[in-house]
Amino acid sequence: MSETGTRRRARGGGGAARRAARSAVSFETAKYIERNIPNFEVLTEEALEIIEANAETILEEVGVNFVNNPAALDRWRDAGADVQGERVRIPKGLARKLCATAPSQFTQHARNPERNVVIGGNNLVLAPVYGPPFVHDAKGGRRYAKMEDFQNFVKLGYMSKWLHHSGGTVCEPTDVAVNKRHLDMLHAHMTLSDKPFMGSVTEPSRAQDSVEMCEILFGKDFVQENTVMTSLININSPMTFDDVMMGALEVYAQNNQACIISPFIVGGAMAPVSVAGTLTQVLAEGLAGIAYSQLIRPGAPVIMGAFVTSIDMNSGAPTFGTPEASQITYGAGQLARRLGLPYRSAGSFCGSKLPDAQAAYETANSLNMGLLAGVNFMLHACGWLEGGLAASYEKFVMDADQLGALHKMAQGVAIDDNAQAMDAIREVGPGGHFLGCAHTQANFKTAFWRSDLLDYKPFETWAEEGSRDTMALASARVEKLLADYQQPAIDPAVNEALNSYIANKKASMPDVIG
Amino acid sequence: MSETGTRRRARGGGGAARRAARSAVSFETAKYIERNIPNFEVLTEEALEIIEANAETILEEVGVNFVNNPAALDRWRDAGADVQGERVRIPKGLARKLCATAPSQFTQHARNPERNVVIGGNNLVLAPVYGPPFVHDAKGGRRYAKMEDFQNFVKLGYMSKWLHHSGGTVCEPTDVAVNKRHLDMLHAHMTLSDKPFMGSVTEPSRAQDSVEMCEILFGKDFVQENTVMTSLININSPMTFDDVMMGALEVYAQNNQACIISPFIVGGAMAPVSVAGTLTQVLAEGLAGIAYSQLIRPGAPVIMGAFVTSIDMNSGAPTFGTPEASQITYGAGQLARRLGLPYRSAGSFCGSKLPDAQAAYETANSLNMGLLAGVNFMLHACGWLEGGLAASYEKFVMDADQLGALHKMAQGVAIDDNAQAMDAIREVGPGGHFLGCAHTQANFKTAFWRSDLLDYKPFETWAEEGSRDTMALASARVEKLLADYQQPAIDPAVNEALNSYIANKKASMPDVIG
Repeated sequence: MSETGTRRRARGGGGAARRAARSAVSFETAKYIERNIPNFEVLTEEALEIIEANAETILEEVGVNFVNNPAALDRWRDAGADVQGERVRIPKGLARKLCATAPSQFTQHARNPERNVVIGGNNLVLAPVYGPPFVHDAKGGRRYAKMEDFQNFVKLGYMSKWLHHSGGTVCEPTDVAVNKRHLDMLHAHMTLSDKPFMGSVTEPSRAQDSVEMCEILFGKDFVQENTVMTSLININSPMTFDDVMMGALEVYAQNNQACIISPFIVGGAMAPVSVAGTLTQVLAEGLAGIAYSQLIRPGAPVIMGAFVTSIDMNSGAPTFGTPEASQITYGAGQLARRLGLPYRSAGSFCGSKLPDAQAAYETANSLNMGLLAGVNFMLHACGWLEGGLAASYEKFVMDADQLGALHKMAQGVAIDDNAQAMDAIREVGPGGHFLGCAHTQANFKTAFWRSDLLDYKPFETWAEEGSRDTMALASARVEKLLADYQQPAIDPAVNEALNSYIANKKASMPDVIG
Repeated sequence: MSETGTRRRARGGGGAARRAARSAVSFETAKYIERNIPNFEVLTEEALEIIEANAETILEEVGVNFVNNPAALDRWRDAGADVQGERVRIPKGLARKLCATAPSQFTQHARNPERNVVIGGNNLVLAPVYGPPFVHDAKGGRRYAKMEDFQNFVKLGYMSKWLHHSGGTVCEPTDVAVNKRHLDMLHAHMTLSDKPFMGSVTEPSRAQDSVEMCEILFGKDFVQENTVMTSLININSPMTFDDVMMGALEVYAQNNQACIISPFIVGGAMAPVSVAGTLTQVLAEGLAGIAYSQLIRPGAPVIMGAFVTSIDMNSGAPTFGTPEASQITYGAGQLARRLGLPYRSAGSFCGSKLPDAQAAYETANSLNMGLLAGVNFMLHACGWLEGGLAASYEKFVMDADQLGALHKMAQGVAIDDNAQAMDAIREVGPGGHFLGCAHTQANFKTAFWRSDLLDYKPFETWAEEGSRDTMALASARVEKLLADYQQPAIDPAVNEALNSYIANKKASMPDVIG
């Protein structure tokens, strides 16, 4: 269904085609990462057991709140929980037992089957930034996001080799009414990309719209039998499950669609200031939320999430790429694996207001940690700026480029005869060089990961070309990508049905300004 | 011997003193890192055994060259190697056996005993950039380094909380004759800082001068009984040990001073393009060099080094922060630990010409990897720019700030009752917040690592203050640090003796332009 690899400008043939090929932007998408390296584990067996026992204690003694949701309270009561008002106290062992029906991995289908992703196991699926109300670029600075920006980010995601997933709210299109924009956002993901995507969670009715649009795109039976959306259900930490998010979860779980059930924690505010305490709460919240999904539909696909940052106790600002967040991310990965559940965490997190060195330090800290923590689904893998308040055009392509390094790192170290390279060492010997030896000639094309963006030129060449920093290089790349974008083909009848669905829906609703 | 914590401007007393205290730059130095986290290991036991066997095969079949060094050839012949011309073939097992006398860890003494470092075991000692002929700053751009720059970098290193070591050639002071500059460089480390430092390796005679200056600083007996320098001996990869570097090694080993014996490898040029092949060569070279140090003096302290980058096969440029370099660094750490030797690798590596996002991505990749790879001595831990051609003032303080995060990460996760924070979770409960709870009040000051440099302010405040990027923040910090610098006290008699030694040495030599 896609036209991967074909390009508009290449159609001219002859010299024009060759010139175009030289400057071509690849539409290739890498397969999701299949790790061939160990996970990094900061918690000892003893620490894990203490945290697991504490989480059960919290669920039993303190409990969680399910707000404005009598049906949820009934479900919990029927399952054996102690329900007082909106407080649900879950006896030790119950939540864990309920979680056991959730699959350890699942396939999310894309409309282009080559872009299907398997979430769980040793895999890592990368999806772009989610949720910013602002966008930022070098030319326009920071401004409220519009639908055109949203479409641009979907296009950039579609063209990014190292992104496996189109994501969800890549930015909030504030120029469309809040009760209608999910329709346009889904339409963009469905028609401007052919990668898998996320559904709306801002109202249960919008989750239902998401399912219905997927039924148009994939067919009604296909959606009931397969997972075609992975949507983000945030827990209101500490330990509160609101009716909006739970309503969306209920729609998705009933329809066999996947939910990321994820605490959103600024440590020190929504959780204790300690790593072990935060992990206890993350686990308690995850257990309660995932157990609830299985009360809706046993076997419904879920991902255990941990969005954790810490607070700067001087200013109250959230901070990113910090060691405490890394420790929590490593530890939560261990806890998720012991539950046998797919794990979501990490991302291109930073607090910087520009895609500068601060942004890159913080982001690299978080991306590397995400790979080694055994994360299975990394939302926000590129484009996050300013604590998530802005989606940055330049940082989107800068981060997306760095994601290539994660792919190579995850392959692990080959140890076959070719990798041992004994003949090369014998051939070259002391004092020689390997540039021309047979082994180098046979392997150099795939030997080293290479950035498509960063500057490897000598100082003099770089200076002659204008002494550009990374932001300037990224700005040029964004411009080129958007100019070269080509929409993947879609069945015109499907497209028309989507447009008709959206038009009818919009006509039935007044504009709500969010 | 130091005046840690005192400041020139604080002497005014009263309001001036309080204002000064509020803007004070701390002179505190953190203890070297003692890791309480596991090492990350990419190689399986099987892969390690193959690489170890292959390295022994290379040493026996191919051998290494000791160039212009008949005494070294005699030593090898006496030890049982097969010496033909300058080629030394080392029977399987011999190098490993010789390495066994090298200590698994050792103390390097500083003139301020509080700054002594223990190199080896679970420790990580951080030292600044080494070797650049250029310096770079925001105001002056890139220019040849001078002695004033060298002194400035020593001052910045002295004032950096997270740097444990003053390093060696923090930049090449090109305005001093090449045969004399080592004297001025050593003098700067000895008098402008009280942290441990490195000796000269550019001629054996300069290594001897380094020992003699240390005898003045520490006392002659002390130097013979203790290690007071850790100096960098590069192997000319592939498998060549030149007389200059080996001559310096001989001086240091004879005097019980430590050497980092380190291949300098641009993968694809000085080693095979494969990770396993490069590790085989790194191990073979390390074994030969370390074995040779033990032929000079059994028990001489050494560090097994691995400086590895890969080549961009498009341009021939070295690249940094790449996944292949990470895999080699992780793997070489495993090999060093199996040899029971301290390990040197990683650093603030980047290829960028500016301290921009590229520099920070590449550097963060390398710093994080260095921590998790079990590195014991990290040279180039801050300030490296442009593939090591330039020492950057701004990047020095930017990287040095990031090193703080490594300290916190290395502490691991506490699991005592306070860390479990069960009372906090019980106190706050669902829907509350932790900002004011007793546990937060008791722990917030030490809970989260906090950058001293990066911007955590809201967008509006940041914009009002001039929308500064990280380079601008770092530039201001460099200026403040150098303005606030205060020299640590030194015995005037020692200082005079050093000055006299240097004056006599210089008077005995013509200027040599390097």
